[in-house]
Amino acid sequence: MLNRAAFDTALGRRPADVIIKNGKVVNVYSGEIWPTDVAISDGVFSSFGDAATLTGPATEVVDAAGYHLVPGLIDTHVHTEASKMSLTSYAKAVLPHGTTAVYSAFDHIACVLGLDGVRLMLDEAAGLPFRVYNPLPCRVPHTIPASTIGGQIGLAEQQAGFGWPEARGIAEVAFDFLIRDEPELFQAIEECEKRRLLAHGDGPGRSGAEVDAMLCAGLRDDHEMTTMEQTVDRIRRGLYVMLRECPVGHNLAPCLRAVTEAGLSARRVALCSDDADATTLVQVGHVDNMVRQIIRSGVDPVTAIQMATLNGAEALRLDDRIGGIGPGRLADFLLVEDLSEFTVHATYVGGQRVAEDGKLTVPLSPPARGPLALSTFSLSPLSAAQLAVRTGLPDGVARALVMETKDGLVRTRREVELPVKDGIVLPDPGQDVLYISVVERFRDTGSRSTAFMSGLGLRQGAMAVSNVADDQNVVCVGADVESMVTAINRVAALRGAQVVARGPEVLAELPLPVAGCMTDADPADVIAAEAELNAAARALGTRVEIPFSFLMFTTITTMPFLSLTDKGLVEYGSFEYLDPVLGGA
Amino acid sequence: MLNRAAFDTALGRRPADVIIKNGKVVNVYSGEIWPTDVAISDGVFSSFGDAATLTGPATEVVDAAGYHLVPGLIDTHVHTEASKMSLTSYAKAVLPHGTTAVYSAFDHIACVLGLDGVRLMLDEAAGLPFRVYNPLPCRVPHTIPASTIGGQIGLAEQQAGFGWPEARGIAEVAFDFLIRDEPELFQAIEECEKRRLLAHGDGPGRSGAEVDAMLCAGLRDDHEMTTMEQTVDRIRRGLYVMLRECPVGHNLAPCLRAVTEAGLSARRVALCSDDADATTLVQVGHVDNMVRQIIRSGVDPVTAIQMATLNGAEALRLDDRIGGIGPGRLADFLLVEDLSEFTVHATYVGGQRVAEDGKLTVPLSPPARGPLALSTFSLSPLSAAQLAVRTGLPDGVARALVMETKDGLVRTRREVELPVKDGIVLPDPGQDVLYISVVERFRDTGSRSTAFMSGLGLRQGAMAVSNVADDQNVVCVGADVESMVTAINRVAALRGAQVVARGPEVLAELPLPVAGCMTDADPADVIAAEAELNAAARALGTRVEIPFSFLMFTTITTMPFLSLTDKGLVEYGSFEYLDPVLGGA
Repeated sequence: MLNRAAFDTALGRRPADVIIKNGKVVNVYSGEIWPTDVAISDGVFSSFGDAATLTGPATEVVDAAGYHLVPGLIDTHVHTEASKMSLTSYAKAVLPHGTTAVYSAFDHIACVLGLDGVRLMLDEAAGLPFRVYNPLPCRVPHTIPASTIGGQIGLAEQQAGFGWPEARGIAEVAFDFLIRDEPELFQAIEECEKRRLLAHGDGPGRSGAEVDAMLCAGLRDDHEMTTMEQTVDRIRRGLYVMLRECPVGHNLAPCLRAVTEAGLSARRVALCSDDADATTLVQVGHVDNMVRQIIRSGVDPVTAIQMATLNGAEALRLDDRIGGIGPGRLADFLLVEDLSEFTVHATYVGGQRVAEDGKLTVPLSPPARGPLALSTFSLSPLSAAQLAVRTGLPDGVARALVMETKDGLVRTRREVELPVKDGIVLPDPGQDVLYISVVERFRDTGSRSTAFMSGLGLRQGAMAVSNVADDQNVVCVGADVESMVTAINRVAALRGAQVVARGPEVLAELPLPVAGCMTDADPADVIAAEAELNAAARALGTRVEIPFSFLMFTTITTMPFLSLTDKGLVEYGSFEYLDPVLGGA
Repeated sequence: MLNRAAFDTALGRRPADVIIKNGKVVNVYSGEIWPTDVAISDGVFSSFGDAATLTGPATEVVDAAGYHLVPGLIDTHVHTEASKMSLTSYAKAVLPHGTTAVYSAFDHIACVLGLDGVRLMLDEAAGLPFRVYNPLPCRVPHTIPASTIGGQIGLAEQQAGFGWPEARGIAEVAFDFLIRDEPELFQAIEECEKRRLLAHGDGPGRSGAEVDAMLCAGLRDDHEMTTMEQTVDRIRRGLYVMLRECPVGHNLAPCLRAVTEAGLSARRVALCSDDADATTLVQVGHVDNMVRQIIRSGVDPVTAIQMATLNGAEALRLDDRIGGIGPGRLADFLLVEDLSEFTVHATYVGGQRVAEDGKLTVPLSPPARGPLALSTFSLSPLSAAQLAVRTGLPDGVARALVMETKDGLVRTRREVELPVKDGIVLPDPGQDVLYISVVERFRDTGSRSTAFMSGLGLRQGAMAVSNVADDQNVVCVGADVESMVTAINRVAALRGAQVVARGPEVLAELPLPVAGCMTDADPADVIAAEAELNAAARALGTRVEIPFSFLMFTTITTMPFLSLTDKGLVEYGSFEYLDPVLGGA
């Protein structure tokens, strides 16, 4: 990357702003540990080797003796909004863990505000010591058939966004869109190729010929692997793979076996978190946690660090800016004492120390929030009757189709018998069959639907949230409609929130005022709220570790085998609406 | 790369055009040898694994049992014009050796015709089964101070060329241009970054802080390394390296030691030939010869092949199109029986066999040549007096500055005493001091200069050529001015040629009518002519293996330590003109 100040420092014409002395660079280019001084000017690495002559009166000299310099870690595919934290709060959470760059489509806020929402995030990013790269969503809504949402992104919006200096391409082109031959999507991919942008893939469960087709459609990578075999399949065919580790998908361990057991080259293996909650990010870690896990699996630390840095930078064609410690690269790096332990001692962005020993060392403030971000919610109070599953069947018993899930991600079919009373098919917490409702929340259209869900294990009460993938409507799961109404109406009153309720009582809540899906609260406060919400949900009977993760993905129609949007229950593959009531017993 | 036909074949909707059965794919992505069938549609790899179901009535099935499928080889930095062959002839020469893609700035023809010359080459390329990628020259003329040439390329021309679909960036940004802070060049690099194009480097002899500066100027790679240390220096700092092997620079062996001895990762190591004559290309080989040499050095064949394919494709950001055998990639590949021998049995481009056992299997014809390509020469006949080195010294002896060279590339200073007669400082073949002249040939301006050269060892006669790097004027070396006049005037009469003469007699010649620097002749005919030219030059006393290589680089001002253009003798570094006559003895 051209930087005139760094260029002048490299040539000895200008003193360095910062010199890091006596450290050992983890050199992801050469694969070595390289003991060298490092000089930085204007936030960019300028010089390696002996930097003594570059010291001027204003040069800050840092003694890194005993530490390795590791390139800043990259999350190559993440929905930062899924953490419920604004970008500022997200940066506060992950900078102490050594993440200095994220690649994020901002499709959550795009569901709310379209391209303006993406722009809001990028403008916020510009004020942070945190690198944010944005491929536009490939399609908003991402649902098939389309659900009711607040914003739209199609080819016209993409053409506008492709003109932004930040443009990188389009994200998560779902295999299901491809095989439906959606003309706009193919045009968007062509447009990316013409503008030298990238089209990123999304092929959950796909293998063999389907992976061939993803590549023939011009897609560059995938992050949806859950097994060694799927990972091998993709690497062999030339897809970059972003191994994922997130609270609802512990995919790293099986996928890493493509390297550790199948013996494939790691050079095209990168890392991502996709969706993670604040508690996991802060307490367990982010990309740093993946690196630790990879090293514990027996992978050489330099190779593990390459996965977290250079490999992803190359996959995303950002290797001239990030992913390595070398001249002309952004001076983002970590100090790590023991590579095999991989505990991040300090994080530097642009040559400035931003975190040390788990704490931020610079103040980060969110931007002032205007009406664009704060006025996205419009939902009148609901009544219990509006959520019930209605039937023409007489009182007695009905057969019903239930979305059953073990992880919140994959929903399989379960058939049960449920009580019918006064034209309503009731949930039955006794056999773990709850109501699940999706309620449109952007324009108070009254569009909503209710079906049945199994797996969460609530015995009473309800949980509701207005931050859900692909949709950003309000999703509520409950054992009874009264609790559900309490929860949903509280979410609406807060203009976006995560709520646990029982009967008329709100047990716990986390307001999400930014675009109805994010908060500017400090990560510590978000974690405290998450703990209260989880505790309240557990008190209602669930044993799921992160109960809200069972609500956040049920609106994704492109994952097998059932999903629910405000328009109804969707069958994966046919993408047709199903009646959750199958008939009389 | 998006290809709808290949996409449809991958999904089983369309039969394959070609199926390659029973081969073993050298998988540069995974690092494995992968036994698999391969299907091809519309010139693009579509499918891997069992391709039986993709066979239709028109499908061509090739049995590759016993062979490896190797990705087509890439020359990542080459001046194809330096071979004196037109692009069509060049493709004929290298396709049988497995080169299917070249990355070439076409700066030779740009010296003649500016951007129109580059366009001519790209239009010719479009008709060939050969992939040609073009970064524009970073600056034409490339000489400091500017010599007299026919075309110009600066920022305005680059801005125009950057709009072409073929645009890749700018080539060979010389370190010397950078440290002179040339504003247009920095603007061109900025423009490349804005348009997501690449700026390639050129740092002969540079090390340490100078390499830092190249990276801080936004340069991506270098191909000028001649030692292990220079190569290590560049890989460590994050420059891609293109190891070079060409007749005048056997740099591969020492540079490869960065991998084999210093133990650095090979992933950012690619290969190039820079400048090579037809005889070497046909008889010794091209990138295939480098692969053989690397394998003989003990490098694993898959790693060696990665250097010749994927690594270069990644360096040039072409890995979505070339550099590997995978879906969505252009179906360019080789059949190779024994990887350790690495003899190319057959070459396929876009799924079509174009060469087998050293012979082309498809006819390639050059385009009709119009006046643009054929009318570039304007030089009136010279007389002997016009070439002499004149002096005000009396008859006797003068001290003179001589360009001495052992390889044609690096010219060092030598001081000698030469006879002075009638105001002329004479050459002295007895002590291997010849005249060297550069004669402007585009607009008959009369601009010319003569100096002294040592190292070639002619005892009599002269050699002249109108194909020389960075300039494309006529360069002539001779033991006497009469022979030189014969040679130069014959070059002019042919409107471009390579000539050996003695006294009034032309001993051998190769006409170069295309832009005055290339021929459409078949490689076999070019080789025959080269053999005659070399034999004639050797009969005149030289023992240099490829005598004309000593003429083709003396006009490059950005290589140490002396050079000659039509304007005079240039000192490297100061870039000032020197008088070759130092004074009386």
